[in-house]
Amino acid sequence: MREILATLAVVDDPAMLEAGELGLGEQAFQRLGLPEGAGVEIAQARPPASLESVRRKIDGEALSDSELAAIIEDIAAYRYSHMELAAFVVACAGFMTTQETLALTRAMVDVGNRLTWDAPLVVDKHCIGGIPGNRTSMIVVPIMAAHGLLCPKTSSRAITSPSGTADTMEVLAHVDIAEDRLTEIVAAEKAVLAWGGRMRLSPADDVLISVERPLRIDTMEQMVASIISKKVAAGSTHLVLDIPVGPTAKVRSQSDAVRLRKLFEYVARHMGLELKVVFTDGSQPVGRGVGPVLEARDVMAVLNNEPDAPEDLRERAVMLAGHMLDFDPAIPGGKGYARALELLASGAALAAMERLIDAQGRKMERLAPGHLKHDIKAARAGRITAIDCERIARIARQAGAPMDKGAGVDLLVKAGAEVRSGEAMYRIHASTQTGLDFACDLANEDTGYRIA
Amino acid sequence: MREILATLAVVDDPAMLEAGELGLGEQAFQRLGLPEGAGVEIAQARPPASLESVRRKIDGEALSDSELAAIIEDIAAYRYSHMELAAFVVACAGFMTTQETLALTRAMVDVGNRLTWDAPLVVDKHCIGGIPGNRTSMIVVPIMAAHGLLCPKTSSRAITSPSGTADTMEVLAHVDIAEDRLTEIVAAEKAVLAWGGRMRLSPADDVLISVERPLRIDTMEQMVASIISKKVAAGSTHLVLDIPVGPTAKVRSQSDAVRLRKLFEYVARHMGLELKVVFTDGSQPVGRGVGPVLEARDVMAVLNNEPDAPEDLRERAVMLAGHMLDFDPAIPGGKGYARALELLASGAALAAMERLIDAQGRKMERLAPGHLKHDIKAARAGRITAIDCERIARIARQAGAPMDKGAGVDLLVKAGAEVRSGEAMYRIHASTQTGLDFACDLANEDTGYRIA
Repeated sequence: MREILATLAVVDDPAMLEAGELGLGEQAFQRLGLPEGAGVEIAQARPPASLESVRRKIDGEALSDSELAAIIEDIAAYRYSHMELAAFVVACAGFMTTQETLALTRAMVDVGNRLTWDAPLVVDKHCIGGIPGNRTSMIVVPIMAAHGLLCPKTSSRAITSPSGTADTMEVLAHVDIAEDRLTEIVAAEKAVLAWGGRMRLSPADDVLISVERPLRIDTMEQMVASIISKKVAAGSTHLVLDIPVGPTAKVRSQSDAVRLRKLFEYVARHMGLELKVVFTDGSQPVGRGVGPVLEARDVMAVLNNEPDAPEDLRERAVMLAGHMLDFDPAIPGGKGYARALELLASGAALAAMERLIDAQGRKMERLAPGHLKHDIKAARAGRITAIDCERIARIARQAGAPMDKGAGVDLLVKAGAEVRSGEAMYRIHASTQTGLDFACDLANEDTGYRIA
Repeated sequence: MREILATLAVVDDPAMLEAGELGLGEQAFQRLGLPEGAGVEIAQARPPASLESVRRKIDGEALSDSELAAIIEDIAAYRYSHMELAAFVVACAGFMTTQETLALTRAMVDVGNRLTWDAPLVVDKHCIGGIPGNRTSMIVVPIMAAHGLLCPKTSSRAITSPSGTADTMEVLAHVDIAEDRLTEIVAAEKAVLAWGGRMRLSPADDVLISVERPLRIDTMEQMVASIISKKVAAGSTHLVLDIPVGPTAKVRSQSDAVRLRKLFEYVARHMGLELKVVFTDGSQPVGRGVGPVLEARDVMAVLNNEPDAPEDLRERAVMLAGHMLDFDPAIPGGKGYARALELLASGAALAAMERLIDAQGRKMERLAPGHLKHDIKAARAGRITAIDCERIARIARQAGAPMDKGAGVDLLVKAGAEVRSGEAMYRIHASTQTGLDFACDLANEDTGYRIA
């Protein structure tokens, strides 16, 4: 029996619906999967029983494994309204025990698909986010492919950032790939850079994200459950996790970083995932571009070994790739970094990326940065001491990223540089005047650049 | 400039909308207040700035008076989505300081209308709810009217209960009364029993309730802010507050009751409202009927001095009315109770109620309890020791109350009574089979009656 939960809206226009007819939005129609004109039965929706547990959570209680499993099952089946999802997410943001976090992770894996790969080692990397422009995956994955370590990377779209790996990769190639085709690509290329949304990997996570994104909620516990559940469901056995630490990053102190690392380690261990956590510099954005098109430009510059490619992006990607290669028993201890560097410098990584782009379906239209632009200038001369990651991300989002691929921020100078008064520090790109205006308002309020 | 926040849905059927046209639901059209065919401008909604404060609240911080004022202003202007409202409500449910509660209350009064009355004493009573069938207001208000103390009672509809005073009064008379007419009625009758929804008294509270109701969230702090803001906005100067205490009531222990009383007293004092808190028995529902029609029947039985009128409802109403009359300087100290009893027994209260019903507009259609019914029987013989208020309320709501006026639960025996095995304990009424089935399922799972 097919079922769908819907909110009733009454129409009195026979041009829309005749008496006795029901209409659905296109997405809902697709989800229900019945042809137009099909007979249906309707009944008042029975509130999901698991909502009682959500109420207990709001009241400050810890939930049992089975309560969380029931909640996640209902969420994955789209039985929660957005209001109810927000209630669950915010209640969990209040507090969540380690045991609850593990139970949530397990429940999230259990309600979805699980990919399996015919290889002893399936490596992956992930960054917890919060650092605009940190698009290392698109450099790391080709390095793995060039080395021959299985790295079938499925990424999400941006949650709270101006672009996710899937959003940026989509500038170059198709990322919405059917499971069969994905398997073929991985068999041939050892890697893929696909959007994970269609795979039903931890599908409850996707539903939760639909509420976390607009509310911009991103707690440690939800982050751990989201990331680990997606990796386990995607069939990864070994994961390098990048946790940037900085004053405007998601993690702002060493003690928070350690607490988060331990939570990741606890959950990963109980889920059977080998984990290497790397703390990285989160004091400013990585690379120059922030937003899908601008980031894709930086990534290709690094893979092309262009002399003016962003050095910080290149260095970070090679370091992470090195840790992943260190998982390979065939690599001598500590030699992963050198191997990664070699694969990048030789052009092997670029060649692998070009093969991946072709395999996934190369985008023929060459997207450009948004044609509307505005430069944000230094109010006074001095040395840039820091760049606010959150502020730059918000400006890029207001400009229209990630939906508007060309929208974003292009950082012309980075921390450490000297600027003259009136010198352009960064350029905002947008495709709509509203987007540009919103972004400029935000930048004029506070540029995000700290000048000493 | 008129503005409305709306979610965009795209239609491709010219029978609905032509290119370049926008449609709105009827309610939204009314709120916008522009004629059909009017030219409008659209822009991407700028997220309300106060959402940043909501995020700080989710992160566990206390908010300043001005932050809460900004949130409440945005909420009253319908700038928050349901998801954002849920986030605010659940974050506040996590914790809220006394100062935040006071600031919230003041902000809620400030964004709305304030009624003023030409009298030194404007009395009111309120119950915090949670006890099904506790419809004392509809007895107390006529007693005040008969005595001549100004008691312009505006009530809300049910939040988490099967019926609010407005829902029950609506069985007998119109309760949706324009402000001008309300003033006339109060001038003539000294009282009114109206729905407060149209008055824009603490309008943010109504918006919050639209989320609290489906989520069934009812914390102490939100309760205090909601009740005190409504009373102050309605122009009350003196309030008797009924806090039922019992194992299945909203307040379950004496210590919680005292904590709640102190919070009420603190906020009331700072808002200039004279407050008398009364703790009452919350160990079982009051009266017999639960649901609008069934409760209206009980109220009229008490006012009519019928010999089999529910004694507990009568006793409680007289006690509360006594406390209110004690506010009257003309009444000798401690004589309020006797005066209340006299006004009820003499029929003066009934006559006042009949005048109120006529003034508000008598309902000509005589509503009956739902025609579908099912008796819930005792599984074994014994003495009823307690009745679960929450369970009975949920059963009545599942049956369809308060939207379905005739739906609800009719308690045939109460705590203290002896039952035989198989004897009917209560009758569920509903107008739809779905409602009856939902309610019976819940009752069969746990009747709510404790038999020793």
